[in-house]
Amino acid sequence: MAGNSFGQLFRITTFGESHGEAIGVIVDGCPAGLTVDLDYIQGELDKRKPGQSKITTQRKEADTVKILSGTFERKTTGTPIAMIIPNEDQRSKDYGHNVDVFRPSHADYTYQTKYGIRDHRGGGRSSARETAARVAAGALAKLLLKTQGIEVLAHVSSVGKIDAPNVSITSAEEFLAEREKNIVRCADPATAEEMIEFIDRIRKQGDTVGGKVSCHIQNCPVGLGDPVFDKLHADLGKAMLSINAVHGFEFGSGFSGSEMRGSEHNDIFVKSETGKVTTITNFSGGIQGGISNGMPIDFKVAFKPVATIMHNQQTVDSEGNAAEISGKGRHDPCVVPRAVPIVEAMAALVLADHWLRNRNSRL
Amino acid sequence: MAGNSFGQLFRITTFGESHGEAIGVIVDGCPAGLTVDLDYIQGELDKRKPGQSKITTQRKEADTVKILSGTFERKTTGTPIAMIIPNEDQRSKDYGHNVDVFRPSHADYTYQTKYGIRDHRGGGRSSARETAARVAAGALAKLLLKTQGIEVLAHVSSVGKIDAPNVSITSAEEFLAEREKNIVRCADPATAEEMIEFIDRIRKQGDTVGGKVSCHIQNCPVGLGDPVFDKLHADLGKAMLSINAVHGFEFGSGFSGSEMRGSEHNDIFVKSETGKVTTITNFSGGIQGGISNGMPIDFKVAFKPVATIMHNQQTVDSEGNAAEISGKGRHDPCVVPRAVPIVEAMAALVLADHWLRNRNSRL
Amino acid sequence: MAGNSFGQLFRITTFGESHGEAIGVIVDGCPAGLTVDLDYIQGELDKRKPGQSKITTQRKEADTVKILSGTFERKTTGTPIAMIIPNEDQRSKDYGHNVDVFRPSHADYTYQTKYGIRDHRGGGRSSARETAARVAAGALAKLLLKTQGIEVLAHVSSVGKIDAPNVSITSAEEFLAEREKNIVRCADPATAEEMIEFIDRIRKQGDTVGGKVSCHIQNCPVGLGDPVFDKLHADLGKAMLSINAVHGFEFGSGFSGSEMRGSEHNDIFVKSETGKVTTITNFSGGIQGGISNGMPIDFKVAFKPVATIMHNQQTVDSEGNAAEISGKGRHDPCVVPRAVPIVEAMAALVLADHWLRNRNSRL
Amino acid sequence: MAGNSFGQLFRITTFGESHGEAIGVIVDGCPAGLTVDLDYIQGELDKRKPGQSKITTQRKEADTVKILSGTFERKTTGTPIAMIIPNEDQRSKDYGHNVDVFRPSHADYTYQTKYGIRDHRGGGRSSARETAARVAAGALAKLLLKTQGIEVLAHVSSVGKIDAPNVSITSAEEFLAEREKNIVRCADPATAEEMIEFIDRIRKQGDTVGGKVSCHIQNCPVGLGDPVFDKLHADLGKAMLSINAVHGFEFGSGFSGSEMRGSEHNDIFVKSETGKVTTITNFSGGIQGGISNGMPIDFKVAFKPVATIMHNQQTVDSEGNAAEISGKGRHDPCVVPRAVPIVEAMAALVLADHWLRNRNSRL
Repeated sequence: MAGNSFGQLFRITTFGESHGEAIGVIVDGCPAGLTVDLDYIQGELDKRKPGQSKITTQRKEADTVKILSGTFERKTTGTPIAMIIPNEDQRSKDYGHNVDVFRPSHADYTYQTKYGIRDHRGGGRSSARETAARVAAGALAKLLLKTQGIEVLAHVSSVGKIDAPNVSITSAEEFLAEREKNIVRCADPATAEEMIEFIDRIRKQGDTVGGKVSCHIQNCPVGLGDPVFDKLHADLGKAMLSINAVHGFEFGSGFSGSEMRGSEHNDIFVKSETGKVTTITNFSGGIQGGISNGMPIDFKVAFKPVATIMHNQQTVDSEGNAAEISGKGRHDPCVVPRAVPIVEAMAALVLADHWLRNRNSRL
Repeated sequence: MAGNSFGQLFRITTFGESHGEAIGVIVDGCPAGLTVDLDYIQGELDKRKPGQSKITTQRKEADTVKILSGTFERKTTGTPIAMIIPNEDQRSKDYGHNVDVFRPSHADYTYQTKYGIRDHRGGGRSSARETAARVAAGALAKLLLKTQGIEVLAHVSSVGKIDAPNVSITSAEEFLAEREKNIVRCADPATAEEMIEFIDRIRKQGDTVGGKVSCHIQNCPVGLGDPVFDKLHADLGKAMLSINAVHGFEFGSGFSGSEMRGSEHNDIFVKSETGKVTTITNFSGGIQGGISNGMPIDFKVAFKPVATIMHNQQTVDSEGNAAEISGKGRHDPCVVPRAVPIVEAMAALVLADHWLRNRNSRL
Repeated sequence: MAGNSFGQLFRITTFGESHGEAIGVIVDGCPAGLTVDLDYIQGELDKRKPGQSKITTQRKEADTVKILSGTFERKTTGTPIAMIIPNEDQRSKDYGHNVDVFRPSHADYTYQTKYGIRDHRGGGRSSARETAARVAAGALAKLLLKTQGIEVLAHVSSVGKIDAPNVSITSAEEFLAEREKNIVRCADPATAEEMIEFIDRIRKQGDTVGGKVSCHIQNCPVGLGDPVFDKLHADLGKAMLSINAVHGFEFGSGFSGSEMRGSEHNDIFVKSETGKVTTITNFSGGIQGGISNGMPIDFKVAFKPVATIMHNQQTVDSEGNAAEISGKGRHDPCVVPRAVPIVEAMAALVLADHWLRNRNSRL
Repeated sequence: MAGNSFGQLFRITTFGESHGEAIGVIVDGCPAGLTVDLDYIQGELDKRKPGQSKITTQRKEADTVKILSGTFERKTTGTPIAMIIPNEDQRSKDYGHNVDVFRPSHADYTYQTKYGIRDHRGGGRSSARETAARVAAGALAKLLLKTQGIEVLAHVSSVGKIDAPNVSITSAEEFLAEREKNIVRCADPATAEEMIEFIDRIRKQGDTVGGKVSCHIQNCPVGLGDPVFDKLHADLGKAMLSINAVHGFEFGSGFSGSEMRGSEHNDIFVKSETGKVTTITNFSGGIQGGISNGMPIDFKVAFKPVATIMHNQQTVDSEGNAAEISGKGRHDPCVVPRAVPIVEAMAALVLADHWLRNRNSRL
């Protein structure tokens, strides 16, 4: 109830602050018998960890995950799986100057006012560091989905006003290989180059910039999603909006769909050569009535620019008096390259949850 | 777990199909002592009911709500409040032609495949008729919020490509009075006229069109929203995305925020004349770190065009064979005028829930 | 969260007060495809309804149940099933004398103090009338269990100090036929006679008496129950303790097991002739480590005497001043004969829930 | 949903197996501002740890708890509190002989059948070792309750057929001091001596024996508990029944209440000298209609004898073939002395949860 759990049947609870001893997650509800590939989980974390390249924060943390429970001889046992990631490079002194002032567009003011107390070393619980725990749990969800052939594939589709063209995805392996070839995680190489250059320029200015991540889910069976409140896209939307810095979510035709006519927008059903029912277009984004229809699921997530900039800014202190804050610390000029695995993780958690839920849709 | 409940502490569970005997809702968790104004609840339902004007469906249903439990001498008693709305004008025969074919971009195919059974009279449970139950429950939530001075104010900000200018809202009463002066529920009179004309033209073509609803929440106290998964905007996003036909949600700077720089986007804190901490800009949309910061909460919801059009369309039948479907029945050419009270209701439910939750944030 | 829902996957939410318009229940999570036998549901309600015999309250209510949603052509569709039971014989005037005084060992004082408001016509929400909604939902759960061959069989095993001998149950049909032959619902005819006579004597004295209900579940598969908090017996215990007037629950060896030695109490595993693993004794009551082991599940529920007696009693009024209350109204001298279907209903709800949950125990 | 969480608002999720790396718990929902006394938490764990005396298991584990998150400068911050207890003395080889056979009245058979996989080193997740995590979380709940003056006080009231007389409790400190004077944790010194002698004799016989723990809660305010399913005693009952080896729960008059008449059993309300409403007797056990009435809450919990005995026993192996198991390992001859802090912890968790919930009972 206090907001640190996500999912109903494949349910995670995360804990930990940016400057505490460790962060972690408990996964409850993972069925027994799933083979746990720890290298895969670590590999997902490596895509999120700080210090990967010149366009991410220079903080260095190995983010090494350890499984404390719930597996036996590399298989899940049906009991809760606890994973822990120690905090390492915490330089709390970087934050000494922020003890008493509220950083603009951060959560300092709202946490302080809500709770009457706040761990002022970095963002505490509001730090995006918490998403490492999500990535670990999401990797487990992905392993579950892979047993069903479901692949969750995201990449950076925009940085600022630089938009990548639509990428046609056929093979998951090829897509991922292409995406991982560049440090911005855009599957279109030409755009990637442009993005990297732009982020690097922004970084040198001590500024930050927003961007978008697009996600495409392959081989989702028909039937995932529960009417009426837990529609698949509603749960995906909540999952994405719960990621730090996200300000928007759309699926299928999205916002542009609101400008279309029904006669253009309707996805006509046809029988494919294999006998499967498909649709000619996919403005529905693979979801109709809140339930997956077997077409690819497509959605897009908008991230605002990181709030920590290397400029001096006006603000107020905890007494409400005017104050100035100077930019210090080591932060990301653009969050989206590191957000890709987080988007995938959260999407995988939603799908794993609804895959389990759907097993009980019929007697 | 089966998706028919929403909220944690102010929790609703809806039931009913478009062509059954009744639809309804149980509200569990409403504190004792709230005065229940049944006329207000009915008034909210009247804004959602069909047959209001030439630009809505011509179906006629009074949508008269009845309270079965949970109140005593017009006050809530702390026990569950059941509200029921009988179905009246159901003309099931309008749907006889659809028994065996899947209507494009409806939920027929996904429901049939998921459950192996489907009430083919209209949308059954997937019909937007279910949202009447939400409006009834949301009206109760609004009454709760009004005791705290919180006002939830939505209007139609776009129809197709017609966008209303930003409306500056000072008084809730004036805003609502202005909005209710026209049948499209846009608070800008000049744009409203243009929208109405456009929808009427679309309707005559047997077509439909999408649109957007903007929502503005006044006087929200600091502190609503729970990190990390139940961020206020994440719960608002899920609430909105669970409404039929919604394809996108953004708050504050939204999608356009992803194109901005941190130095532009950061909302600078200042002390207002009254001593209250406010921000100069509000790109955060009134929410920072998932928690309300006392500024107005602003978000926007994108609706796709209604799928039922008065044209013949290709599709498949339940055997997967090619079939044709002809448009019959009485449907909305554009859903947004009737969606305004639904958006408000769902927002109110989220806020009421988090208002209760926030009472336990401190010892 | 407000206590009116029960179950996780097969989840019910009840509403209604003793003197309102109706009571009812929403069942959410019942899988699609279950055949709904309305006569069976009504038959279960008939076993709970008032006015059945000389040893139950003389109030007369038909307790006719109506299904408002969730079924199509007599099958469940996977959508929420709302059932409603109108209140009929409410004689609120019987309660006029109680407006301002707290009836001893009733919920008047605690409700008034907790909520600051109270429907003083009868018990309001605290009335055992609410259990009719549970019986309706439980009957649906029983229909689900019957598709798996699982039978939930309860009877009155004690009234006051009159204890029935252990009844050996082979056929569910025979057991139920025997039990329904007498008005006290004890499956041992000789004891039943004694119990009826005793209750009738108590009734004539204007007094009441407690009793016990024993429950036996046949053909429960191995695997129901979830460690560590949702052990099958823990959920059964909560279910039973949530029934009005219940003061104790035990399963298997129960309280007497606490006096035994391990060497006597351990249930030795053997391979039965059919190759099935069984145990020689069943002190475990069919549950080991919180999970059903395939043996019959046995538990016992203790009911206190009904608080409403036809004597004058000392008490206090809402100002805390001494007052006298005289016994009026029409009440049960002993609650257990009508509690049998409630015990069965609640047990069936727990089992149906765990049967669904167990489908996800393995990949 | 998978059974490893308990509570709604003060919610715990435990993880860990007896022979894994660590066990632990996340407490989510503890309000900000509670002072965390780590010594107190450790002190509670010390009362549960193995190796305390000659009448407990001789396994040695320090059970040192570490807080990983959720506090700042010794105060709770409103974020999830993770506590971890490393496993130390695990001698897995003690269990080598049990790999393939099902120990009688243990959870080996049910876990193996439910999950298809099982950590055969000790009980794995079914081991009572998991309760250490509950004790840590419960100690936090007790600290919360202590801010309200609420004291949860349990002791061993029976071992086998040896029953302690009713202990009259006035001061919490005195009661605890008396109880902790003897190794069996019975507050009646004479009975304690008899119990210790008896357990020691049983131990020497390689056998085990059951017992009962009685719990008494002081200064509980009126209003805790939620009708109709989450009655205070129903949640207490579930909490107790979820503890390993518990076979029965009763509160107030309990099972003996079922033999009483209403005229004897009703608790007459009176105004006390201080103006408070109290009852003359307390057969209700401090709870009426599922809600605390301000009187002491009294309940009793029955524990079966520990299943592990030092005798040879017949059983079956994983193929269902007859096998013999010999008693090895280091186990408790009687579980109740170490169960006292567990009973208190679980009761405290229920009360803390309902204390938070009750804050929203009124507007």
